[in-house]
Amino acid sequence: MGGFFGVVAKHGGMTAGAFSAEECRGRCERLMAALRRKGLDGALVRSPTARLYYSGFAASNGILSVDVRSGPTLLTDFRYLIAARRALNWMPCDDCGRGNEAKRILRRLTRSWRRAGYEGSLAVAAHTAQQQTLSQIAEWTDVDSLITGQRAIKSSAEQAALRRVIRANDRLFERVLRGARPGQSERDIRNAVRREADTLGDGEAFDAVVCVGANGAECHHVPGDDPWLPGQPLLLDAGLKLGGYCSDLTRTVCCGRPSARFREIHALISRANRTAIRRLRPGMTGAEVDALARDVIDRAGHGAAFGHSLGHGLGLEVHEAPAFAASCKTVIRPGMVLTVEPGVYLPGELGVRIEDVVLITPTGCEVLSGAAF
Amino acid sequence: MGGFFGVVAKHGGMTAGAFSAEECRGRCERLMAALRRKGLDGALVRSPTARLYYSGFAASNGILSVDVRSGPTLLTDFRYLIAARRALNWMPCDDCGRGNEAKRILRRLTRSWRRAGYEGSLAVAAHTAQQQTLSQIAEWTDVDSLITGQRAIKSSAEQAALRRVIRANDRLFERVLRGARPGQSERDIRNAVRREADTLGDGEAFDAVVCVGANGAECHHVPGDDPWLPGQPLLLDAGLKLGGYCSDLTRTVCCGRPSARFREIHALISRANRTAIRRLRPGMTGAEVDALARDVIDRAGHGAAFGHSLGHGLGLEVHEAPAFAASCKTVIRPGMVLTVEPGVYLPGELGVRIEDVVLITPTGCEVLSGAAF
Repeated sequence: MGGFFGVVAKHGGMTAGAFSAEECRGRCERLMAALRRKGLDGALVRSPTARLYYSGFAASNGILSVDVRSGPTLLTDFRYLIAARRALNWMPCDDCGRGNEAKRILRRLTRSWRRAGYEGSLAVAAHTAQQQTLSQIAEWTDVDSLITGQRAIKSSAEQAALRRVIRANDRLFERVLRGARPGQSERDIRNAVRREADTLGDGEAFDAVVCVGANGAECHHVPGDDPWLPGQPLLLDAGLKLGGYCSDLTRTVCCGRPSARFREIHALISRANRTAIRRLRPGMTGAEVDALARDVIDRAGHGAAFGHSLGHGLGLEVHEAPAFAASCKTVIRPGMVLTVEPGVYLPGELGVRIEDVVLITPTGCEVLSGAAF
Repeated sequence: MGGFFGVVAKHGGMTAGAFSAEECRGRCERLMAALRRKGLDGALVRSPTARLYYSGFAASNGILSVDVRSGPTLLTDFRYLIAARRALNWMPCDDCGRGNEAKRILRRLTRSWRRAGYEGSLAVAAHTAQQQTLSQIAEWTDVDSLITGQRAIKSSAEQAALRRVIRANDRLFERVLRGARPGQSERDIRNAVRREADTLGDGEAFDAVVCVGANGAECHHVPGDDPWLPGQPLLLDAGLKLGGYCSDLTRTVCCGRPSARFREIHALISRANRTAIRRLRPGMTGAEVDALARDVIDRAGHGAAFGHSLGHGLGLEVHEAPAFAASCKTVIRPGMVLTVEPGVYLPGELGVRIEDVVLITPTGCEVLSGAAF
């Protein structure tokens, strides 16, 4: 693999709606306005996902320098520069350089800055180095929550991209679950997911979770050789990427005739899922939405077996802000897209999770996922 | 996808040699000795890869607390705890808790620490939070280079795992390049790589780079609809994962009769690759090894077109320390495994890269990759 940096984030095409010049320019302008309100002169955006969000250009390495007066400039390396200049006629693109040259380039771009934003998700070592290089900057402010907060509200182009990838994932579930046969191993089913993810989208958004029988009680069990046998549950948690955006869905089905215990737990989780979906409203906090489903499971006496949060934001990343979680004080607002995925895990017995994706609307939510299992 | 954390790093089995209890205990003991030499009371290891390296257990979330007196303790969440306890009978495993409970657990574990190690790769926000929670710790030291330095020297069990995954990748290249036909698109060839990576290993180690014709001049071009036509070069950079370890190989081949220009550049890159492999010796720095190949390309007048470094370490991650790079002062030592991948990129014309993997030996190196293209 070339150079010394990671994998290229991919998306289906630079001209797709969610990454059009108009769309990305608007995002940058909103960021500049927010930085101005905080009294900052600019921000250095370094994480690949945030760089993709604001520039529309995917590269494993680079820095997007956003100056509140002169706007954004993309610095990237040799490997991406030709493609970046071709894709971004609305933004200056330059070589990010190396060593002392890199420092000079960055100093020149941020010469007039005294107060700058950085991403709190940046590595300590990288932030320490940038603080030393840019010693004219007197004050650094973590602007992560500002960026993730902006990303949390999906534009109509992003909603369209999410609808498309979620529809493709529904189809994946239909094909994989209809195709799954008794005797197939978790690994066989995992491989079917990967094949369909390549056919229907740009590959998996994350490694699929495939659990048969009691393996379902381990939430992040790694698919192995255990076969799916009659009477056993199958928990499938999978998502694909398409046009840069992620999908994420979980269904728990049974091979042949389900046990009374499976039916009981499945009905409970289904009720928790539907209760949260029916009752959630913009204006509630993430914690309040989490509690809607948790109450249902608590009342059935299984609260201790629901050990994770109810859901998470979904977009360019498979997990992004905000969360339906006891710790999330964020107020839910229209345009947010999150998963709703209650589950109960009984070690040695079974695990059931049912996950859907919802778009928050002015009056409640719309369920975007539609796989009929 | 369950909970609010990322993808599970996977490996083929907890009992595999490179992750056996004996192997991992030895790694922890060497870390403890190194921490003691630095006068530290312990270290918090949080990155998934380093946690996997020291514990042998893969989880997207957790903290490995390594106390120089009492040894390691793995904290992880609900989702992984059953599997962790089953896999790690040689190490205490506990729930990492949430919110204030998580803080209490961490304070208890590190009660006696005054000087602690942290990973410089950790996010600023996470490190700031841990500093506030563990206020009894007076001094924090970045131990990243200590950890990556330890990981850079591969044990014999790790060398065996790397030989296995590299052999599988050689087979992948034979199948994909023998199977590739004129008229197929980059995307078709990419899909063939993914299929073989699932069959021969645990999937791709990174998104394959597939470039036909002049696309080869963009080092990290995203595979598209361009067909591979007679006379055109095909640059394929791909790797798979197997048993937790990564492979990485690049070949540049031609469809039918190659042009004189392709033959000239291919011969040059091949010479640069072989020169570096023949001349590198333990005791040289990464920068000195980089120069071996760079000199060959410089003398041919193409120095400016070789814009990346010569190679990078390979192991649990597809890019890890050290590097064959002008900026790398690390002394190369036996047991290190790195790529050797010179390339020349001529915009609008072609790109050629030839990448092999070498194991540093006491007298030079052994080429582990063997794909005959």
